[in-house]
Amino acid sequence: MKRISLFIACLALSFSAFAGRVVTDTIPSKILGTDVLCNVYLPDGWDDGGKQYPVVYLLHGLSDTYDGWASHGRAGAIADRLIASGQIAEMVIIMPNAGHPNPRKVLNGYFNTPGRNYEDFFFQELMPTVETKYRCIGDKGHRAIMGLSMGGGGSTVYCQHHPGMFSSCYAMSPWLDEKGEVGGLDPDDQMAVVCRSVHENSALDFVDNADESTVAQLRTVRWTFDIGDDDWLLPLSTEMHFKMNRRGIRNELRVRDGDHNWEYWPMILPDALTFVSVGFVK
Amino acid sequence: MKRISLFIACLALSFSAFAGRVVTDTIPSKILGTDVLCNVYLPDGWDDGGKQYPVVYLLHGLSDTYDGWASHGRAGAIADRLIASGQIAEMVIIMPNAGHPNPRKVLNGYFNTPGRNYEDFFFQELMPTVETKYRCIGDKGHRAIMGLSMGGGGSTVYCQHHPGMFSSCYAMSPWLDEKGEVGGLDPDDQMAVVCRSVHENSALDFVDNADESTVAQLRTVRWTFDIGDDDWLLPLSTEMHFKMNRRGIRNELRVRDGDHNWEYWPMILPDALTFVSVGFVK
Amino acid sequence: MKRISLFIACLALSFSAFAGRVVTDTIPSKILGTDVLCNVYLPDGWDDGGKQYPVVYLLHGLSDTYDGWASHGRAGAIADRLIASGQIAEMVIIMPNAGHPNPRKVLNGYFNTPGRNYEDFFFQELMPTVETKYRCIGDKGHRAIMGLSMGGGGSTVYCQHHPGMFSSCYAMSPWLDEKGEVGGLDPDDQMAVVCRSVHENSALDFVDNADESTVAQLRTVRWTFDIGDDDWLLPLSTEMHFKMNRRGIRNELRVRDGDHNWEYWPMILPDALTFVSVGFVK
Amino acid sequence: MKRISLFIACLALSFSAFAGRVVTDTIPSKILGTDVLCNVYLPDGWDDGGKQYPVVYLLHGLSDTYDGWASHGRAGAIADRLIASGQIAEMVIIMPNAGHPNPRKVLNGYFNTPGRNYEDFFFQELMPTVETKYRCIGDKGHRAIMGLSMGGGGSTVYCQHHPGMFSSCYAMSPWLDEKGEVGGLDPDDQMAVVCRSVHENSALDFVDNADESTVAQLRTVRWTFDIGDDDWLLPLSTEMHFKMNRRGIRNELRVRDGDHNWEYWPMILPDALTFVSVGFVK
Repeated sequence: MKRISLFIACLALSFSAFAGRVVTDTIPSKILGTDVLCNVYLPDGWDDGGKQYPVVYLLHGLSDTYDGWASHGRAGAIADRLIASGQIAEMVIIMPNAGHPNPRKVLNGYFNTPGRNYEDFFFQELMPTVETKYRCIGDKGHRAIMGLSMGGGGSTVYCQHHPGMFSSCYAMSPWLDEKGEVGGLDPDDQMAVVCRSVHENSALDFVDNADESTVAQLRTVRWTFDIGDDDWLLPLSTEMHFKMNRRGIRNELRVRDGDHNWEYWPMILPDALTFVSVGFVK
Repeated sequence: MKRISLFIACLALSFSAFAGRVVTDTIPSKILGTDVLCNVYLPDGWDDGGKQYPVVYLLHGLSDTYDGWASHGRAGAIADRLIASGQIAEMVIIMPNAGHPNPRKVLNGYFNTPGRNYEDFFFQELMPTVETKYRCIGDKGHRAIMGLSMGGGGSTVYCQHHPGMFSSCYAMSPWLDEKGEVGGLDPDDQMAVVCRSVHENSALDFVDNADESTVAQLRTVRWTFDIGDDDWLLPLSTEMHFKMNRRGIRNELRVRDGDHNWEYWPMILPDALTFVSVGFVK
Repeated sequence: MKRISLFIACLALSFSAFAGRVVTDTIPSKILGTDVLCNVYLPDGWDDGGKQYPVVYLLHGLSDTYDGWASHGRAGAIADRLIASGQIAEMVIIMPNAGHPNPRKVLNGYFNTPGRNYEDFFFQELMPTVETKYRCIGDKGHRAIMGLSMGGGGSTVYCQHHPGMFSSCYAMSPWLDEKGEVGGLDPDDQMAVVCRSVHENSALDFVDNADESTVAQLRTVRWTFDIGDDDWLLPLSTEMHFKMNRRGIRNELRVRDGDHNWEYWPMILPDALTFVSVGFVK
Repeated sequence: MKRISLFIACLALSFSAFAGRVVTDTIPSKILGTDVLCNVYLPDGWDDGGKQYPVVYLLHGLSDTYDGWASHGRAGAIADRLIASGQIAEMVIIMPNAGHPNPRKVLNGYFNTPGRNYEDFFFQELMPTVETKYRCIGDKGHRAIMGLSMGGGGSTVYCQHHPGMFSSCYAMSPWLDEKGEVGGLDPDDQMAVVCRSVHENSALDFVDNADESTVAQLRTVRWTFDIGDDDWLLPLSTEMHFKMNRRGIRNELRVRDGDHNWEYWPMILPDALTFVSVGFVK
């Protein structure tokens, strides 16, 4: 009898035991003129008190929202497991919204575009707000950024623009440039805007054009590019790897079995979180 | 323009490209006196014609149904990726129903119990029906079984009862025995029935009690037990490993970071499918 | 006392337990006018009798010999472990000599060069001899080839020349072309000869120049290219991946942490052997 | 010409590029009345100056010496690769001698035995000497210990005796107790001494017998036990895992494919170093 109820109890416990938790917050923005939804992962023990944590920004892709990583990406459960077993550091994970399921009607993107200065919002409003509210240590040594596809490109470019703010960048299946023409799209199509902004903020060109002092700063960030061998964006990542090597900016490249989809990203998230955790070493 | 539409096209393709497919079938059963739902994974190329395939039976756990592996376990997407990249053989995967979300009201289980001879159904009705309908090769060398928790126990016991029918058994977080008392449960509680049946079909006792000729047959199956280090069922798997070793029945044990949940099972499914694929070698 | 002697016995056993074995054979060659040394891995149970096996050719790199994989690469111990645990099929592994520690004085290489028609030797003398002597099944479905650096290029080109003979090719850190000028080398330097032969047998050009019927045959081979992200040959592998994709020849690309050295090759050998094992499925 | 010499140059570079280095030092010991040999891994950049590092003690097994990890275990090359790619923190690794190839003639072991107080030497002489000389940070938060077999047991017991000194313990294939009788051995056989000392310092009994305040201290160490499924010492590790769980001391258990040999230990060293690196987070 004892054992049977134990079995049932364990089963119940097991499916509910989620040591940390994901909360949804709303960040008001004057720059964007609207509130921005944001998921926040808080590790086990958060409620116990005043401890400060390293922070990771985890960015979603095109046609997706702040909730993609927590739902499709299972980020909370993965972080819970890895923290519990000591494979990654205790950390806060910030998953802000920068998109919409219909990217043709509603503008997606991490860069400044006319009427929507998202990058300004990110650095001037989002970061100060969440890092204070969620007790982040808040220095380069304890801050990292990662993301998938459009968010992988965003992570990379944010570190290029602010190399003094992030210790590590882990770009997954990143959209690092957009080399196509946008003239063919209807001017009302918001995809034209995001494509143009990705090209204007080309991460590839940034490496080519960086002066020596910028290159020196880029060397202070730990970089990984991780992408599936069936991903149509693979040529951008290999080109980035070779370009950064030529400028003497050490960076890791990983190409595994996979495509541009939700089979790939949760599979590599443990390596991404481990990589940035090791970078938190002081 | 070309490239932008390519980007959109690729994105669309990528999220829809599911080379194989999971279909839901209904298997009529005289033995059970009811129809049984069953998911079937058919690999890419299935519709092209008369090719015959190896088959894997993939069993769900307590409180779950035929759909658990395809939905929570992402079995279709995982099999697609692994087949496409050559990491596993092309195969048919059979996921039959043996449970219900409310195991106290509706009897779950893989064994014969009064009024519900599920094991008889499995071998006498399910297997002949699906292996004919879905063009399975249908010999020991091209048939394997795996499952999680209650289904891991079921896989193990089915191979103990029919070692001549399966080349490999991959038991995940398996419920190999139930050592508790069942007297404390309400006699109407169907959990009492399944617990009793698990104990009466103890996989541990089977190894202890097997005569030499049975042991010789058990040695013709390739066995793996794979379970998380935080799983409360771990002692059963380690005991099984030691017992089988003592009888000279080669078996693999894997203990990884994890618990008794859906974080663990999709994570180990690739290794399970690879293990049985290699066993299909002729 | 019992237990202590058990400890000592186990320790002793453990360090000697090498279920399979590597033997060194000498293959006489009329084509080369000399004997060729060759290591052969024979799996556990080889001596029991008449069983026939799948075969893998495992090729070494420049400046190395037939013994590199067995000594630096630990191929025997790795194959033993993987066969014992069911991760790969039982197989024979052939490691022939095609090199010398001093490649400037003694010609290395897998291709035909004036006075040393190694490719002819490989297909006309080595293969028939060893496959008979070592009880290989000897058809495309049960034959694979793999190798590192110069041997990775050799494996690739051999499969391009004889796609009907190999089910799988796993090229590690492969030297797929030599784009440099050779005029600067002393004409007596044997490195000039091997570099020229690698360029004349360019695996990259072969894909570009293949007619449709050849492409159709290349599609019958399972291809993987696996190389470290710090390997200076990486651009050749990424170029190969893209070229083959453009011709519709499915192939896997893996880029992991690593360089062009013996840290990398034993680390990836398990994946290589698993990949070809799954390809042996019938 | 440029490219060919590049090929040769790269090849040469590649085989010599060993960013860090292993040096052999001699530690004088009054307690042991003799000098003790010790390998020390110094990471790339060590010679540049005054930086202080985290430290890991890496202990060898019975019948082995200070050089086992560097030679058979390839610890230097592995640490180099992992540090270069950001998978582990920069660290100093100390590999002291505690054994001899003939353990029957020359006493092996990490514990105090009559006339050879090795544990006293380790804490009173070795640690202060090397941590000063090799610029170790020298606090619990930046010190970890790991080892194999006899050294896995030693690591565990050292952390039990000094939980305030180590942040992490990674025990590989550990010899955690010796349950056999020693009476059967010749009293002159030094194996009797080491076996007795392992039993007298039983890591299993320590957990059972610890009072609550000791248990509280044991919880401040991050523990992993990692062992092959074919290792005859496996029952000790599973027993340890269950015992520590019962006392509420969180610990990780990993059981992978493998035996008690040099195939296993270099394979798991990357995970061990990653685990302790993450524990260095401040």
